[in-house]
Order: sequence, then C-alpha cells, then structure tokens
Amino acid sequence: MLYIIKIGGNIIDDADALKRFINEFTRLPGKKILVHGGGKIATQLAADLGIQAQLVDGRRITDAATLRVVTMVYAGLVNKNIVAQLQAEGNNAIGLSGADGNTIRAVKRPVRQVDYGFAGDIPDDAVNTESLRAFLEAGFTPVFSAITHDGNGQLLNTNADTIASALAVALAAAYKTALVYCFEKKGVLRDVADEGSVVHVIRETDVERLIGEGVVAGGMIPKLHNAFAAINSGVSEVFIGHADDLGSLKTGLFGTRMRK
Amino acid sequence: MLYIIKIGGNIIDDADALKRFINEFTRLPGKKILVHGGGKIATQLAADLGIQAQLVDGRRITDAATLRVVTMVYAGLVNKNIVAQLQAEGNNAIGLSGADGNTIRAVKRPVRQVDYGFAGDIPDDAVNTESLRAFLEAGFTPVFSAITHDGNGQLLNTNADTIASALAVALAAAYKTALVYCFEKKGVLRDVADEGSVVHVIRETDVERLIGEGVVAGGMIPKLHNAFAAINSGVSEVFIGHADDLGSLKTGLFGTRMRK
Repeated sequence: MLYIIKIGGNIIDDADALKRFINEFTRLPGKKILVHGGGKIATQLAADLGIQAQLVDGRRITDAATLRVVTMVYAGLVNKNIVAQLQAEGNNAIGLSGADGNTIRAVKRPVRQVDYGFAGDIPDDAVNTESLRAFLEAGFTPVFSAITHDGNGQLLNTNADTIASALAVALAAAYKTALVYCFEKKGVLRDVADEGSVVHVIRETDVERLIGEGVVAGGMIPKLHNAFAAINSGVSEVFIGHADDLGSLKTGLFGTRMRK
Repeated sequence: MLYIIKIGGNIIDDADALKRFINEFTRLPGKKILVHGGGKIATQLAADLGIQAQLVDGRRITDAATLRVVTMVYAGLVNKNIVAQLQAEGNNAIGLSGADGNTIRAVKRPVRQVDYGFAGDIPDDAVNTESLRAFLEAGFTPVFSAITHDGNGQLLNTNADTIASALAVALAAAYKTALVYCFEKKGVLRDVADEGSVVHVIRETDVERLIGEGVVAGGMIPKLHNAFAAINSGVSEVFIGHADDLGSLKTGLFGTRMRK
C-alpha cells in the first residue's frame, strides 16, 4: 500500500505534535508520501511584514506578496524542517514543490467573478507519475508543500488537501493507494462531544443518511464527497483521523475509513 | 562531463541576468548540478523583519532568526523560482537542500574563539553520492540552495562555494566532473580594468607567479587555492567566468580554466 498522508496546521504549529507525527510516520511500513500545509507561520510572517490579507467575499486571494510569503514558509521553512526531522529518524525524505521534477503542474484559477491571484487548481493530468515513481522506487519519501507551478515559470499556491487527493488518484494506476487526512479529531464522530463515538467505516451509500442524521455536517460534507470522488477514481481507501493514532493505520483501524 | 555550476548574488538579484543564465544552463549538454547563493533578498527580508545582522570580528553569525530567514529565502523563494524557471525551459530540475535525500550532511562549526551559530562546515564524507546518482541517472537536474543539515534534525547555513566544491569532489569518483564558478568578471584578468585580458588557463605551477605579479590578489587567492585543492581531489577542471559566457563552456573556452 502507498500511503499519501496529509497533515494540517494543528500539527505544523505544535512542535511536540509534529515530533510525535514524525515518529509515527517513519514507523509506518511501506511507501509513503507526506503532504503538509503551512499553519500559522505564514499568517504571522505576513503580519510581521505588514502584508494585509486580501479577501474577496470572505475568500483569501493569493496576491504576489502573499505568494512570496507562502513560498518562503511552506516550501522553505516548514518543508525543510520536516525533511531534516524525518532524516534524523532515518527516513530518506525529499522535500518537493510541484515545480520540483515537474511533479504537479497546476493551472492558475480562471478569473470569473473573483480573481484569486496566484492560486493554482489541479487539472486531471497534472501529476507527473513518472517523476514520482522514480523517487518512490529509489527509496525516497516525497514530502510535498502546497506550492505548485504552471509550467511557464510561475509558482502557484494550491490547497494541500487537493494536492493529496490528486497524488493518490494519479498514483492509483501504479500502486494500491490509501489517502489519509490527519485532523484535530479522532475521525467522523457520531457525537461531536465524544471522541469515543468514531464512525469506523463509511460507505458511499451511507453518506446521505449520515448527513440526514446530522452526524456529517459543515466542512465534513465536502470532505466526504471528495473522499468518495477519490475512491471512485481508483483510490482504495480514504481515512480521516487524528495524527496521534497513525500507528493503527497498518491494521486499518485508524479513525474513519471510507471505502467502496 | 558532469558540470557543477555555482551562481552568486549578482545573478540571483538581477531578473534579466537570471533569465539569460537559465537559458544558457539549460542549453548546456549533459548532466549538470546548479548551486546558488541567496543574494540580497535574505538581507532585505532580515531588515524588513528588524533582525539585526550579528557580526563578530567582522564575520557574520547565523543565529536562530537568521537561519529561519535564509531557510525561507534560499531553500524556498529563490530555489523554487529557479526550479520553476528551469522547468519552463524543459529542464527537469529538482530543488534540494542538503537535508533532501540526505544529500549533504554538514557539521555545526565548532565553537573556538567565535560561535558562528548555525553555520555548517562540510566534512570529507558529507556528500551522499548514492542519492545524487539516483537523481542524475533518473534524468533530474539537482538545484542546491546553500542550506544543509546535521543529520539530527538541525538545518545549517553553508557557504555555496563550499557546497559546489564538495559536490564536485565527491562525484568525481563516479563522473568526470568540472566545477564552474560564475562571478561578475569574465575570468581572472591580467589587467583588472580590461575584460579582454582574461588569463585563459592556469596550472598549479603558475599560481605563485601570478600572485607575485599581482594578477591574482585579494579574494581570488583563496578561490584559486580551493580550485586546485578540488583538482588534486579528483575534479577534472575548474572554471571561473561570467555567466553570460556559459555557452562557451562546451568548447572549454569559458573564462579562466584551471587544470592539472
């Protein structure tokens, strides 16, 4: 199984949580790819530099100054520190943006009502599986920051969840792939106040019922739809759970498991 | 021939010069590695963030705040923009720090009179030729920023000239290697005011005479000594010249050529 594991700001911003994650990730057997967001460091750096967040209709715009900041923080500071920590554990990590090895060629989001600036969307044929297979087969662990390129020299800011999903779908032709989203809860919870109420398995036929029951609501709804879109495109399984439980992934008991 | 080419701030800081370099570098046939410094961007970012340069006896100290800045600028902003521009020309570049693939494991400079902070020196066995050969043989062009790691999770700031030399020496066992330093002049000049007075070839036996004649002086003296140290450690040739002349490298007529 090739695991594509995405971690978010709650781990990046917490040195102890990151250290625990690095340990669990390293101990996970087999081939794996890590995808990370940037956390609060980019927001803080932008504030320190007096760069105002550009919002249109509540949506964040990646202007040129913001692109510089996220390139520095995601692809530089965060990515290289994660790689150095993985190397210290004996995991032969290489840090990548989508430009490196032309691994992910994104498209600047088309301007319709809103110009999102240097935000990159991932079209269907965006992932260069040849480069990725060369890295994986040579024994490297790719570590992706959420920076891509357009193939014409322009870097782009791309959602880390989307990168993880695109990688898992594209690599499903070559590997049995599992997509793993780490977040701040133990999984989809039947009772949001009870971390013991994890829904262990969700099949596509369960989704509408779970939405109807209110078990799946808010931001979890698109997450589940995206998970099943990935599964219907060849990904074997999608997991959502807490990074501290990553050790149970190898028995398939990590968080909430979505499958055919 | 494997070319290891180092560019400095005079190219990084000048978008047109960088574009010309990217073109010439891409057109150079065969395997190649690029090593880049950071230019003035890091200095400016540090100033914008109110980080004071720490100097002891006129030497720059890499304190924790400075390490963050150079990691962001060298390994993030500069490295990824160069990689994206190389990809746009069809050159399959991958950006690396010494942590990526454990390619360069440096040692924090020992504290004697001065604590240089997070400055990394490169011991003899620092370069992981196995990782580099995997990249080169898979058709990738490694692009190194001047950031290394110590193998225990700590990133370090390392001189780009030293990285280029260490790579050339280590890879000389597997490839015929040429080390190329791009700088602001056409080469070692017999008359510093006359760019037409390039000394085309220097052999080790010429060095003391050239110093005696004043043709080689100042910062060029250690550059030449380092060049012949590399040659005596297996590097075939060392070149010093102007990036705009890189096209003449394939005929061996680039700048000043140092050889046995």
